[in-house]
Amino acid sequence: MQELKEKILTDGEIIEPDILKVDSFINHQIDPKTYRSIAEELKRRFKDEKIDKILTIEASGIALGLALSYELNDIPVVFAKKGTSKTVNDDLYTSEVYSYTKGKRYIACVKKKYLNEGEHILLVDDFLADGNAMMGLVDMCQQAKCQIVGCGIIIEKGFQKGHQKLVDLGLKVESLAIIESFKNGNITFK
Amino acid sequence: MQELKEKILTDGEIIEPDILKVDSFINHQIDPKTYRSIAEELKRRFKDEKIDKILTIEASGIALGLALSYELNDIPVVFAKKGTSKTVNDDLYTSEVYSYTKGKRYIACVKKKYLNEGEHILLVDDFLADGNAMMGLVDMCQQAKCQIVGCGIIIEKGFQKGHQKLVDLGLKVESLAIIESFKNGNITFK
Repeated sequence: MQELKEKILTDGEIIEPDILKVDSFINHQIDPKTYRSIAEELKRRFKDEKIDKILTIEASGIALGLALSYELNDIPVVFAKKGTSKTVNDDLYTSEVYSYTKGKRYIACVKKKYLNEGEHILLVDDFLADGNAMMGLVDMCQQAKCQIVGCGIIIEKGFQKGHQKLVDLGLKVESLAIIESFKNGNITFK
Repeated sequence: MQELKEKILTDGEIIEPDILKVDSFINHQIDPKTYRSIAEELKRRFKDEKIDKILTIEASGIALGLALSYELNDIPVVFAKKGTSKTVNDDLYTSEVYSYTKGKRYIACVKKKYLNEGEHILLVDDFLADGNAMMGLVDMCQQAKCQIVGCGIIIEKGFQKGHQKLVDLGLKVESLAIIESFKNGNITFK
């Protein structure tokens, strides 16, 4: 998606050898026009699929979930919440996730009544790197016996393992900007 | 806003004497149609105001921020982040907030470059109770010397103090459903 790649080159910031900040338009300040374009492109990439519901994770996935829902006839969006302790609660699906960025574990959870057996779920998130958050969403969908339609991602770090983990599960992964490397502070896309 | 009140009566759950859960359509599962109606109504209530930017707080304010931006010509949305420790960082505005629901304090923060002197900022959030989160947003806007246009709220607990605190600062507060009481498990609106 050329428009997104140009926006990343213009407004993204590389703050460490492998950390890209896009908080001027994606995940602190939100540029609604960019989100609309992203949502239109994801709609196009999943146009042949039946989708009942969008599942994402707080906080940065929420804007993407809603923007995409508005392109997909207002289907419901569910966002997993992040907790710090494993609550024993029969009403929740939970999955332990290691956050590479923050260097710690958290518990992702979704109320069982919001993921129903047989529903066709599209998973979305702003970033895909090692894929841990996305694997947590996959885990909860599997517990709920949902059909996972695929994964829609804004920015993928193509040199990390997330994409392959998801493909190995037979999932369709669509990332709108795939970063190949950050060599010398320059971003190269695949 | 009659449609919202009816939705709260149909789908809301009172889980303790004074806690209303609306996570089937507002803040865990998101109903995009409801959000669009809410955004249209907030647009109407602030139609005479100049608004440059929307400021909210993660996670539950994000969907409202984006939905409203889509009604207001795609103006930028900024969401404050929640941290646990006061980072000394010249790049951030911060404000300490006591969460009544969770019974603990957190630090709300916004990067300085996303709040600029003189900008007209509309504050939005899903709930207004004691007003602590909203007062944190007000505090950061004041630090940044922004003009606060007002506060747009989905559900207000009219029997708590948040509304009055904001009005005492001279702010316009528009809440789409104001709960007067939860007596005997029944919701009464103002």
